[in-house]
Amino acid sequence: MTADHQQADAAAGTNQAARGVRRRTLFKTAGAAGVTAALTAGGFGAGRLSAAQDIDEKLSLIGSDIVDFYGARQAGVGTSPQAHACFIGLNLKPDTDAKGLTRMLQLLTDDAARLSTGTPPLADPEPELALRPARLTVTFGFGRKVMDLLNPQLTPEWLKPLPKYGIDKLQKRYTGGDLLLQICADDPLTVAHARRMLLKDSRYYTTMAWIQHGFRNARGSYPEKTTMRNLFGQVDGSANPDRGSENFDYLVYGEGELGHIPAGMDAEKGGHLKPWFPNATSLVLRRIEMNLDTWDELDRPAREMSVGRTLDTGAPITGGGEFDEPDFEKINPHGFPAIPDISHMRRSRSDNPDEQIFRRAYNYEDVPDAVWEGEADEDTAVSNAGLLFASYQADVEKQYMPIQQRLADLDHLNIWTTPIGSAVFVIPPGADEGEYVGQKLVEHT
Amino acid sequence: MTADHQQADAAAGTNQAARGVRRRTLFKTAGAAGVTAALTAGGFGAGRLSAAQDIDEKLSLIGSDIVDFYGARQAGVGTSPQAHACFIGLNLKPDTDAKGLTRMLQLLTDDAARLSTGTPPLADPEPELALRPARLTVTFGFGRKVMDLLNPQLTPEWLKPLPKYGIDKLQKRYTGGDLLLQICADDPLTVAHARRMLLKDSRYYTTMAWIQHGFRNARGSYPEKTTMRNLFGQVDGSANPDRGSENFDYLVYGEGELGHIPAGMDAEKGGHLKPWFPNATSLVLRRIEMNLDTWDELDRPAREMSVGRTLDTGAPITGGGEFDEPDFEKINPHGFPAIPDISHMRRSRSDNPDEQIFRRAYNYEDVPDAVWEGEADEDTAVSNAGLLFASYQADVEKQYMPIQQRLADLDHLNIWTTPIGSAVFVIPPGADEGEYVGQKLVEHT
Repeated sequence: MTADHQQADAAAGTNQAARGVRRRTLFKTAGAAGVTAALTAGGFGAGRLSAAQDIDEKLSLIGSDIVDFYGARQAGVGTSPQAHACFIGLNLKPDTDAKGLTRMLQLLTDDAARLSTGTPPLADPEPELALRPARLTVTFGFGRKVMDLLNPQLTPEWLKPLPKYGIDKLQKRYTGGDLLLQICADDPLTVAHARRMLLKDSRYYTTMAWIQHGFRNARGSYPEKTTMRNLFGQVDGSANPDRGSENFDYLVYGEGELGHIPAGMDAEKGGHLKPWFPNATSLVLRRIEMNLDTWDELDRPAREMSVGRTLDTGAPITGGGEFDEPDFEKINPHGFPAIPDISHMRRSRSDNPDEQIFRRAYNYEDVPDAVWEGEADEDTAVSNAGLLFASYQADVEKQYMPIQQRLADLDHLNIWTTPIGSAVFVIPPGADEGEYVGQKLVEHT
Repeated sequence: MTADHQQADAAAGTNQAARGVRRRTLFKTAGAAGVTAALTAGGFGAGRLSAAQDIDEKLSLIGSDIVDFYGARQAGVGTSPQAHACFIGLNLKPDTDAKGLTRMLQLLTDDAARLSTGTPPLADPEPELALRPARLTVTFGFGRKVMDLLNPQLTPEWLKPLPKYGIDKLQKRYTGGDLLLQICADDPLTVAHARRMLLKDSRYYTTMAWIQHGFRNARGSYPEKTTMRNLFGQVDGSANPDRGSENFDYLVYGEGELGHIPAGMDAEKGGHLKPWFPNATSLVLRRIEMNLDTWDELDRPAREMSVGRTLDTGAPITGGGEFDEPDFEKINPHGFPAIPDISHMRRSRSDNPDEQIFRRAYNYEDVPDAVWEGEADEDTAVSNAGLLFASYQADVEKQYMPIQQRLADLDHLNIWTTPIGSAVFVIPPGADEGEYVGQKLVEHT
């Protein structure tokens, strides 16, 4: 268990079950070249081990760390982002009925729960590939067709494709889907094996609509709480609510059972976020192509003005540190706002405190189309890169859509970015042991 | 510096320069959320640090670890395999002459050397993405066209496409190329940024023929010397010569300058490997599609018979451990050879000790073609997976080709595997500081 997790566990106390992010770390014998150890953070027995073993065991945190699958909320939202993500959109086959869907969700829930602890699922033909959970999380999302089969009366109004924005150039291969599988782990082989097992157990009931891989820095390259950078080099996500904070709970899961709304949210305009179901949230996944070539034509000050943040630390260009508030009133020596009105940061902000989202994005970089098609020539782009913009919020219509509309209307960054994929899912509550994900929706009357 | 590296350095002594794998680890301030530390393996100052800092600094090995770029041999061959690899095949533009090629190699060498130490290359527009080398190696390979421009008289006879094997179904998008960039690191963002910088500085002179991404377990998931597993779940590479051993030197770089041939290699049939150039080697990169679906139809004993090794430990099915010799004479209770004559292990072995290669393979998993093309239906495969089989050897014709021919003629594994890409490159010697990769070839008379 990492120290951060210990602290989180200690602090969590009462809301541990509600957050569903309890963690523990197993150190187990690792196949052929086994590392056997009973190791706790800060207490490495350097005297007992060779130097090589010592290093191996310190690093073995990465493979052995576990995020609990079961809990009131699904893992993979409030979980500190893992290095690798695979988002898969599945479509129900025409003859998949409620019974088939339920059977599949039972299978996939069982697979996910086992894989999350480094245990091979039932009938895993490659059980040795399941032994390193590496903080694996599998998060399920439902589209309207799945909700229709489970309990249509619970379906929130906003569970549908986003409005067509003027900036969108959506491609079928990244858009839509009835069912989401979000698979994240710090080890890419863990993701690959989980993907394989889950797809095998879903193929009788579904077809693949799309699959998208993303990455961040490897675990350990930066301290856990470092804000990610995207492929433009920008610090990306500084304004996110802190995982585990009251604001996070409210913005991602809506007003709590006791009607608690955090201070600052119950202003005149805010405080209106209701959960569509307790401990449930939503995902908007946008695939945003980033044109690295035209971006590279900008000098550094121009880049910083386009967002409103410095590139080195991510601080607002009006000063302070990464997490300090920008000064939108500040005027530069030329008499213009220091943070331009068309900057991304300015445009994404609202006076309505409800209009905030929780981002958990991943970079992507794929083979350029012309190369894939075997038709590369002098004009072929050398990059096919961007961001899997994963946004979680209690209410898509009240939180995501107003921000997206403002950015679609005017955002300096639109010059270099293009949304090419879009999907919306509800993220149902977590499953308790013995349940399947979605069961709470079915049993709700 | 990891303990393993310390041991390697201590042991290397005299041949350190020749192997070009000296390493050191820098711990430097890490951007906004800096980790500042003067940390050595086994000597963590737990008393001075908070528990969270302690963990962060232990894991920071992953981002800060450096593999020297300069040296007699290029890094990335004898380097313990990193978690991520990107292989890029480039074609020279028709008007790229020797002068242009040299200019590009100078640029790319300088980029690679800087990136390998966590230093942004000149004019890096995203310098913050360069700060975590994570054992980055950039390895250059040359095809015949590049050799023709540099020093054609050095070109080995075998530098050409492999013979067409009956099992091959090669696709243009994975085949050929005049120049290879092999980019490996433990952090996927490090690979992405290095890829970007190198491609930008090569685009004036080249077009992209293909690009292929591969992965292994994350650094730290298993102890460093653990043999990899492929997506069939097999331990893959047990028979490899030990990096840094005499056998490795001989098989990968040929007979040494003093004419030394390791014991066991100078038998009647072996001992004939000459370097095409001192400290140079070659790469055969084969993209081998693995049909996970038909493989899954086999039970475990049938899988083990197909290779001749057990799935759990990788040991020969005749007994012993992973690195023990198989007993090809052993007869099973049914009166047949315990290791079938058509097994992969049996077919890949030769009585000629020269017929060995050094493998440094990576798994790949890409989007199924039908999904990419937006035409997925019920029959669409759920996997597009396999192995980037990277084989290094002193002499392609004497080492790689006989093995490949035997496997093409008969190998039980051919039922489930298909080579769909193929490329051959010489790997020139490394560059000393101030040189560019390839300069030693140009200056040779």
